[in-house]
Amino acid sequence: MIDVTLLGTGGMLPLPGRSLTSLYVRHDGRAILIDCGEGTQTAIRQNSLRFKNIEGILITHFHADHMSGLPGLLLTLGNEARTEPLHMYGPVGLEQVVAGLRVIAPELPYEIIFHEYGEETAEITLAGLTVTLFPVDHGIPCLGYRMALPRPGKFDARKAKALGVPMPLWGRLQKGETVDGFTPADVLGEPRRGISLLYATDTRPVPAIYEYGKDADLIILEGMYGDAEKQERAEFTHHMMMHEAAQIARDVNAAQLWLTHYSPATPDPTEYEAMLKEIFPETVVAADGQSVTLQFMKD
Amino acid sequence: MIDVTLLGTGGMLPLPGRSLTSLYVRHDGRAILIDCGEGTQTAIRQNSLRFKNIEGILITHFHADHMSGLPGLLLTLGNEARTEPLHMYGPVGLEQVVAGLRVIAPELPYEIIFHEYGEETAEITLAGLTVTLFPVDHGIPCLGYRMALPRPGKFDARKAKALGVPMPLWGRLQKGETVDGFTPADVLGEPRRGISLLYATDTRPVPAIYEYGKDADLIILEGMYGDAEKQERAEFTHHMMMHEAAQIARDVNAAQLWLTHYSPATPDPTEYEAMLKEIFPETVVAADGQSVTLQFMKD
Repeated sequence: MIDVTLLGTGGMLPLPGRSLTSLYVRHDGRAILIDCGEGTQTAIRQNSLRFKNIEGILITHFHADHMSGLPGLLLTLGNEARTEPLHMYGPVGLEQVVAGLRVIAPELPYEIIFHEYGEETAEITLAGLTVTLFPVDHGIPCLGYRMALPRPGKFDARKAKALGVPMPLWGRLQKGETVDGFTPADVLGEPRRGISLLYATDTRPVPAIYEYGKDADLIILEGMYGDAEKQERAEFTHHMMMHEAAQIARDVNAAQLWLTHYSPATPDPTEYEAMLKEIFPETVVAADGQSVTLQFMKD
Repeated sequence: MIDVTLLGTGGMLPLPGRSLTSLYVRHDGRAILIDCGEGTQTAIRQNSLRFKNIEGILITHFHADHMSGLPGLLLTLGNEARTEPLHMYGPVGLEQVVAGLRVIAPELPYEIIFHEYGEETAEITLAGLTVTLFPVDHGIPCLGYRMALPRPGKFDARKAKALGVPMPLWGRLQKGETVDGFTPADVLGEPRRGISLLYATDTRPVPAIYEYGKDADLIILEGMYGDAEKQERAEFTHHMMMHEAAQIARDVNAAQLWLTHYSPATPDPTEYEAMLKEIFPETVVAADGQSVTLQFMKD
């Protein structure tokens, strides 16, 4: 299962009760943080989440509302006596931007390992999840992220017995290991539906979101603007309209949509909720601290 | 009069409900901000203060808990359509540190004018206040700040009449102008007690604090550690003990002491309040949002 907590839901600048957009994704006691605006570390505490679990930080792009909390967070990780390396992923230039911010966090007791991505989609494994990084359209280099937990097929005890697989090996085969010449494929059924979630902000709707958001258990998109008259502005600034997010969630057959990254000019985004549910009933106009545990579907 | 609001009271790292130490000082609709850790801009909103009023930002030193909110604040000042230059004051190296942080806030619609100070005490005028900048002892370059509003003597109508000063000039003379050959000294009594406040964190007790804190209406010092057993640690890290702050306030004859910049290991600093009031009864173990209006004493 995957625990997902939206630490903040603000775009551009933080408001009282609305931190900047950041997402904390936990699987099996290991965590990924996506973006780190001002207020992120306080939100981690407020939601009783742990700093130590964070294995990697994914940055969507280099605008301040997605990175301004980073130097403070890096220091806090150090104060927690971290010595394990921290992996950071983001667009090309990430290391240089972080170096700039570290003017106030020059000494850390752990290493940061940078992974920079250009115009190509990439796949990595982090915190036990398969993470797909794909470029989106924000006018500057910006990445979207899909996180997935694949699920192997059911263990077929009859097959295992017929092949003479000793029972002590069953567990390891089920976990995907090849043991004593037996392969998982020998004893497992067809892979089953896993869990996936997608996070993409800030961006216009792009094909990659449709591709990687397909059948997602949760899709998190920006709700920068709600009013239809802001369409032109959204296009000009490479942001997404709330109704466009709902249309995407509907079209990719997502189980649930969370909106985030609201414009500070929208003090109450729930005023658009009814309109959005007309398009996609499983829309959540999320607030800070929105959380869910995504689980494998019952067989 | 001077309005003083302690935006945050945290040291090292922000906690829920405790932003990093920052002070907002307003006089006559013009404001000074001292330090700008993560959470400062949200605290400005929370306390219904205005961004536009800020004429200058005073930085004590370059540790992250005093500067991490700066890039976000600079952008927010830009979003408020600021075009007037912003003055920044701090230790030597300020411009370079701010340049590093501006990697995520590269474009601003206003100019920043930097004023860097070394080992010498200096005096400037900002937001209509006389500000004294003096070095303190934090192991790295660090400045303390005194802000004062002088008060001219009482207008002596009998003197003015005797000298034949036309009544339409009285107001300007009282404001300190020299008009038509008449000087303020001709018509004003002895200067009266003004208002002063002092802000010094992070630092060991140093003579300059005693000098510039003398008879202060308000003295704001750090309460990094409360337990007596932390004395050695305070000396090693160049911080101040709570009881040392109270002793200073008593010795300089301050009207009031506010403590701030608590260690995150001290979730409830008020547990030391009774002990501190034994030393200096007018001690306030301040919390975020502590505010006061300092007024001229009645004649």
